[in-house]
Amino acid sequence: MADEALTPVIVQDAATNRVLMLAYANEEALRRTRETGEAWFWSRSRNELWHKGATSGDWLDLVDVRVNCEQNSLLYRVRPHAGVCHTKDASGKARKRCYYRALKDAGTLEHL
Amino acid sequence: MADEALTPVIVQDAATNRVLMLAYANEEALRRTRETGEAWFWSRSRNELWHKGATSGDWLDLVDVRVNCEQNSLLYRVRPHAGVCHTKDASGKARKRCYYRALKDAGTLEHL
Repeated sequence: MADEALTPVIVQDAATNRVLMLAYANEEALRRTRETGEAWFWSRSRNELWHKGATSGDWLDLVDVRVNCEQNSLLYRVRPHAGVCHTKDASGKARKRCYYRALKDAGTLEHL
Repeated sequence: MADEALTPVIVQDAATNRVLMLAYANEEALRRTRETGEAWFWSRSRNELWHKGATSGDWLDLVDVRVNCEQNSLLYRVRPHAGVCHTKDASGKARKRCYYRALKDAGTLEHL
């Protein structure tokens, strides 16, 4: 799989089953994830391999990797160390998941 | 959001927190999901709106929709009626989730 061939990866807390984030992997990110036991992705914004936690300290320890029926998405089941999201809560700590908001009743994706 | 602008949607069982599937939505699919209280997607293979369950009977009742920090993915929390996946288990019933397989130890995405 070339860098251009990115597979969406759902990241789930293995203990609580909470959905934490969604990111993308290429073959190299998946290989490193399985070799190191920590979550690696391909950053679409920086266009580079992304070792989650390398700058934030918020590593995700891998429990296992699952694949869907059509083999076009992955599920990383992980144990988070602390925060997960790059945004912070009111106390200044990294949020524990990226899905901290309900979609507003009148909202669309453009108007959130 | 045009049909071409597709947002990945993680689908999660609201009762168990199990991750069931990943699909894609455009603005119209999201609108119908919220109006009908059932999960709608955009089918990338058929290139058309997809009312999940319309042919299989496996509707997904919507509990709520969450959005991630960067507003580039969605989380549908649902109550499945029966099966979810288009593949069937040994007894011939639709599987209850698409992530029924662990990635094999030696596998890559190409060689699964």
